[in-house]
Amino acid sequence: MNDWQRLGQRLDGERFWDDVEALSKIGALEPKGICRLALDEKDNQARLWLVEQGTSLGCTVHYDALGNVFLRLEGQDPSLAPLLIGSHLDSQPRAGAHDGALGVLAGLATLRTLVDEGITPRRPLEIVAWTNEEGARFAPGASGSSWFAGQREYTSIVEAVDSHGTRFGDALKDCLALLGAHGLDFRPDPFVPHAFLELHIEQGPILESLHKSVGVVSGIQGVNWYEITVEGQANHAGTTPRGARRDAFDAAHELITALKAAAYEQGDELRFTIGKFSLWPDSVNTIAQRATFTIDLRHPSQNVLESLDMRFRELAERQWRGCDVHLKVASRVAPVKFPESLLEVLRQSASSDCSDVPELVSGAFHDAIHLAHVCPTAMLFTPCRAGISHHPDEHIERDDAESATRVLAEAAGRLLN
Amino acid sequence: MNDWQRLGQRLDGERFWDDVEALSKIGALEPKGICRLALDEKDNQARLWLVEQGTSLGCTVHYDALGNVFLRLEGQDPSLAPLLIGSHLDSQPRAGAHDGALGVLAGLATLRTLVDEGITPRRPLEIVAWTNEEGARFAPGASGSSWFAGQREYTSIVEAVDSHGTRFGDALKDCLALLGAHGLDFRPDPFVPHAFLELHIEQGPILESLHKSVGVVSGIQGVNWYEITVEGQANHAGTTPRGARRDAFDAAHELITALKAAAYEQGDELRFTIGKFSLWPDSVNTIAQRATFTIDLRHPSQNVLESLDMRFRELAERQWRGCDVHLKVASRVAPVKFPESLLEVLRQSASSDCSDVPELVSGAFHDAIHLAHVCPTAMLFTPCRAGISHHPDEHIERDDAESATRVLAEAAGRLLN
Repeated sequence: MNDWQRLGQRLDGERFWDDVEALSKIGALEPKGICRLALDEKDNQARLWLVEQGTSLGCTVHYDALGNVFLRLEGQDPSLAPLLIGSHLDSQPRAGAHDGALGVLAGLATLRTLVDEGITPRRPLEIVAWTNEEGARFAPGASGSSWFAGQREYTSIVEAVDSHGTRFGDALKDCLALLGAHGLDFRPDPFVPHAFLELHIEQGPILESLHKSVGVVSGIQGVNWYEITVEGQANHAGTTPRGARRDAFDAAHELITALKAAAYEQGDELRFTIGKFSLWPDSVNTIAQRATFTIDLRHPSQNVLESLDMRFRELAERQWRGCDVHLKVASRVAPVKFPESLLEVLRQSASSDCSDVPELVSGAFHDAIHLAHVCPTAMLFTPCRAGISHHPDEHIERDDAESATRVLAEAAGRLLN
Repeated sequence: MNDWQRLGQRLDGERFWDDVEALSKIGALEPKGICRLALDEKDNQARLWLVEQGTSLGCTVHYDALGNVFLRLEGQDPSLAPLLIGSHLDSQPRAGAHDGALGVLAGLATLRTLVDEGITPRRPLEIVAWTNEEGARFAPGASGSSWFAGQREYTSIVEAVDSHGTRFGDALKDCLALLGAHGLDFRPDPFVPHAFLELHIEQGPILESLHKSVGVVSGIQGVNWYEITVEGQANHAGTTPRGARRDAFDAAHELITALKAAAYEQGDELRFTIGKFSLWPDSVNTIAQRATFTIDLRHPSQNVLESLDMRFRELAERQWRGCDVHLKVASRVAPVKFPESLLEVLRQSASSDCSDVPELVSGAFHDAIHLAHVCPTAMLFTPCRAGISHHPDEHIERDDAESATRVLAEAAGRLLN
């Protein structure tokens, strides 16, 4: 048996779960859930907890200009690009304990296993906690990973302001001062990892329904966000016959029927969500002058997103019940397909004959979507109950999380040598 | 020719229009429109303007406990119940000059004609301005007429509070003091009129499209207001497949399709309006947990309203996309059908052979809906441009208004003898 083989089996499940429980106490809410908003006191406390684990394992701990924290286990050949494993420690305001944190802790468990077994891998291993993935305090999210991957500018990231008027840049300065005061190495520039792996809770119901502890994520859906405005004419609800109306609600209702029909022609992989909808003047006995709504449209294939984009524009160019439609693209993120070679490593790590390993496309964004621009990247999912996340009701089964972590460690072993 | 014949022809059109222009200066907005909120300074000034016209015509001017003002032209037989003609002087915050005011001024023009021609009708004539028809400052509206008709309690009316915290009762006290200071007769109790006539702008597009100056209103639609809540489950827009969603927006959309289909089976007379619609949590990438919307449903037939009410309840009892629906009736006003005998008087007054007189059902409420409970009541409509009202763009043609006023005077002549 080589050093890198069966790393998953050798992983200490008890120790892993101790870490999960220890970290979940930082920012814990009553009666359950956590709150660790990016760069707040609890989020920084979680960083320091991670630093402490790394230091006590003999790692070098680095931090960079965005407050991303890296625990480095040196390899036999320090000149090789490190394998990077991680996720984020920040949370939504009322969240569960495992969204993000689990991916950092699974990386830490992998690192612990190597240290416990006295294995020095050929290639360095780094465990990372990315800053502000959630975007709940400072929008948009994935600040740390997008900057690291060269996808977003430092100068624009630090200008974000939270609801209390605090600048991202100021909160970041405090965080960097704290990390500096703990004597950690400041490593200002990003680097190119050998590969990036991220384990995350699924935030969807698929693995649970399949009774599987782990799934290989083959990519991340692309997403288009639309803002659609329908302009009609306000009028008296009692006196205006149907034929004389330019009812913005009625027009929006018919337009949405057509948009939905076009979307659902694309099959079950498509996600079409209208999450915001408002009327003006919003009065019970006044015909709506204006309807405004959003569409969140997701699909793994850029071709599908582009063809639907054209179809949506065609529909918006028509008049609906005498009303004009204005369609604006508020955001557009291309889908990511993870490389087959790395997916194969994950499949082999999950099942010796690669059989019976569910393959999923991530519907949510993750730090991995940015890392995919700089190095081979892939993800594992583990189920969460009823697909619930961003809520204190988020729940994982210990056995599932441990199994998935063993698969991650197994894959890491293969990639480190 | 009897005294009461051709009263319409004898009406002084110039004088009528002078009144229209004089009254429209009270509360005039720049560059156009008026603002006379119920019981505010301008509304009271309009009352006093009307009082002055009555006094100078030799009328007795009364006011009652709600600030309704009555100009009384005594009849040959003062013991007969008076014919009552009128409407309201208050307006929406940014309104046109003719909604309500025209009906009072047309009554005044009728009274002027009798005085000018030296005619003492057999039966007394009273011109009324009802307090707070609009309900814009103090909700609900039609305070004066609903109290007069015994449809609403004084004690509940005076408790209404405006957006500045002023009680209806306090504003009313000031108004009554002002009227008392002008030496007018306080007549505390309502009485039973011989009949009530109200001329009003149509606030709809029908007469304009028919190129008609006047239409006979055969009744007022009934209205049901519904508040409908659809309860689903918030979830991640990217990760939740369609089959696993309980999307409150999607459910509301499909429910509304069914509600609309049921409603429009009832034909063109039906008015179905969704004027309010909101989602919670109203976030672009979160599946809606709750959708809330209103329906304003109107029809001249109580049977149709009742059968649709049953149908709506049936639809609300079903599950839609796994969501539960809660339907609440927020308000219910039965339709009013004006008596055929009075409609016949109006038709004959509009056209000697009753031919070619459009007949309409009012989609809006008017003071007449309450008076119909105590005496024979009917209405005339005159067109307003593009059906626009409750807006400074409200506009009437002088010729139309004058023609309609002559029809009202003609009808009054027939009813006074």
